[in-house]
Amino acid sequence: MTEANYEARRAKLLKKFRECGIDSFLISSVSNVRYLTGFTGDSSWLFLSPGLTVILSDTRYETQLSTECPHIRTEIRDAASTILDLAARIVGASGVRQTGFEAEHLSWATHRLLKESVDAASTGTLVPVSGLVERQREVKDRFELEQIRDAIHVAERGIAVVRSSLRPAQTETEIRYLLESAMRDFGAIGPAFEPIIGVGPTAALPHAHAGKRTVAEHPVLLIDWGATNIHGYRSDLTRVFLTGKPTKHIERVYQTVLAAQKAAIAAIRPGAKCADVDKIARGMIDVAGFGKFFGHGLGHGFGLDIHESLRMSPLSGQVFEPGMVVTVEPGVYLPGKFGVRIEDDILVTQDGCEILTKVPREFEEAFVGFLA
Amino acid sequence: MTEANYEARRAKLLKKFRECGIDSFLISSVSNVRYLTGFTGDSSWLFLSPGLTVILSDTRYETQLSTECPHIRTEIRDAASTILDLAARIVGASGVRQTGFEAEHLSWATHRLLKESVDAASTGTLVPVSGLVERQREVKDRFELEQIRDAIHVAERGIAVVRSSLRPAQTETEIRYLLESAMRDFGAIGPAFEPIIGVGPTAALPHAHAGKRTVAEHPVLLIDWGATNIHGYRSDLTRVFLTGKPTKHIERVYQTVLAAQKAAIAAIRPGAKCADVDKIARGMIDVAGFGKFFGHGLGHGFGLDIHESLRMSPLSGQVFEPGMVVTVEPGVYLPGKFGVRIEDDILVTQDGCEILTKVPREFEEAFVGFLA
Repeated sequence: MTEANYEARRAKLLKKFRECGIDSFLISSVSNVRYLTGFTGDSSWLFLSPGLTVILSDTRYETQLSTECPHIRTEIRDAASTILDLAARIVGASGVRQTGFEAEHLSWATHRLLKESVDAASTGTLVPVSGLVERQREVKDRFELEQIRDAIHVAERGIAVVRSSLRPAQTETEIRYLLESAMRDFGAIGPAFEPIIGVGPTAALPHAHAGKRTVAEHPVLLIDWGATNIHGYRSDLTRVFLTGKPTKHIERVYQTVLAAQKAAIAAIRPGAKCADVDKIARGMIDVAGFGKFFGHGLGHGFGLDIHESLRMSPLSGQVFEPGMVVTVEPGVYLPGKFGVRIEDDILVTQDGCEILTKVPREFEEAFVGFLA
Repeated sequence: MTEANYEARRAKLLKKFRECGIDSFLISSVSNVRYLTGFTGDSSWLFLSPGLTVILSDTRYETQLSTECPHIRTEIRDAASTILDLAARIVGASGVRQTGFEAEHLSWATHRLLKESVDAASTGTLVPVSGLVERQREVKDRFELEQIRDAIHVAERGIAVVRSSLRPAQTETEIRYLLESAMRDFGAIGPAFEPIIGVGPTAALPHAHAGKRTVAEHPVLLIDWGATNIHGYRSDLTRVFLTGKPTKHIERVYQTVLAAQKAAIAAIRPGAKCADVDKIARGMIDVAGFGKFFGHGLGHGFGLDIHESLRMSPLSGQVFEPGMVVTVEPGVYLPGKFGVRIEDDILVTQDGCEILTKVPREFEEAFVGFLA
């Protein structure tokens, strides 16, 4: 990424100002600031207008900003002032009339304080703006797709290490640390999120923390993991490994989830509605009798954040476009027994989609060798 | 912690409702929900009124809630509804008139949606409430102090491993991973935050990411680290280790920071103003000629979160009370050269304070043996 690339992203965003009724925009989301400037710190805002681009930050980040964003003007505060003071001063000095703020990222209280400061410093007004940068981020550019592919590659190398070294006495926590360490060895700056490692009943908790259960306790081992690559982009996968002889019930649940996932992926193309794709998977799981055991959405966008604004759920009003990247992750969770979730990362292409993740997912491929 | 302890925390909170002008409270901060209920998941809200305690969550957490909060009523949504629907239904059904919301934790946009839902379901109103649970959390109870001491103990054992194994060719990143791994071996569920490991010029970036500099590159090695213990409580320390022969300039900066830290700590007692304690350290660093190289606040509360509401800075209006826990962490950062920060964790006692952290901090004690 060059400064010209970041400038192009900002130029694209500026073109949306008119329809939002704004002539300037205060961007406070850490990921949105990073996306538009390349700055990797936090606690910093971006002020953007047709004539002015400024990053508002504090002394902790002064040196880092001069390295990461040498072409962007910065305003640095010390410990005796707040970012609200800085923001109001710039709004006042630049003579803008309608300054957008990120309605999902500014708390109710911060908005009130910002409004007081802006009212004191100018005659301009604050305008709530929802999801503007997020919508731009839904469609990934070439650089972002390279990074996401890299984050997937690192995650896939990591899981290969884990799979090849599974032992009956290993705990969920031991697996988690081995996986994190392996991904780092392959170039990750960290996991994309706290990896979920669940044996048997723990796998029935969609957001379980890895604990003390051992691999030998139950034939189902669920791993939901991803890597964050050097440029901050993430991957997100889930696989179930069969570490012992599965019951017919386990097989039926696995095949139900897998069939639902495949059918949903097959329906992803430009123009398809996210809610409709969700419905395909949800309907198949429902018909198989497991409807009440699948309570979360089918998938979500990801990139710099692990959960981005694209959502597949019954409530989604979104439509797929080329360049969008989304997880597809149906699951069936049987409390106290086990759970199955299968998750891949999908890129929407011009005429359909591409499955970016390549870890085998067929039932027969889920068997781990050590018990054979 | 027993359910009776959590109930006592909620009872204490309920007593503040009248002065806030509320008869019920929707608590949306993950840490505040955990503090009041023991629930360790996220995406869940707590509704609290004198007659009703309900956790609003979704199917992902159904089993976990039944284990962690068996005595608290839960309302579980599926993928076809939102937490706002749940919240509005409960506000409507319970007949409350003035429902508080957490003004710092609800985004502007979520507040607007919540207001629409509540307006449709009841004649009650939403009232912004600022920092109510946070103020209660500023003073730690016995259980919390035990956990913080434990998190400090784990962090101190971890740094002893790192210090004893320092080698000239080690990179900042290698040190980071060794430290995280050592703390886990001693019982941490993870670091309290991404550890900052900075050699020389990297130490001059207060929020640096560990990178590829090696220990041999510069005599100054700054480590800012902490552990999260099994109950979610954190610790936060910083030390500078001297891995080679320091210049007189390094010694002068180190002694300036250390003297400022000691003077500030000596001033902490019930009734002392946070801004005054900040001023003591800031003034000493200023007099020594390094004022413009210390741009952040002197310290912050911590516990379940690494940054809690108690702040020592020129802007703070807070006053110390017995049971508060706070970091004291002055620093001097010389861009392109090196930085020194020394940070300890302090408990405010009945008649003064106790330094909870015991890692040696004298200049002579900062020397690492391998070059001796």
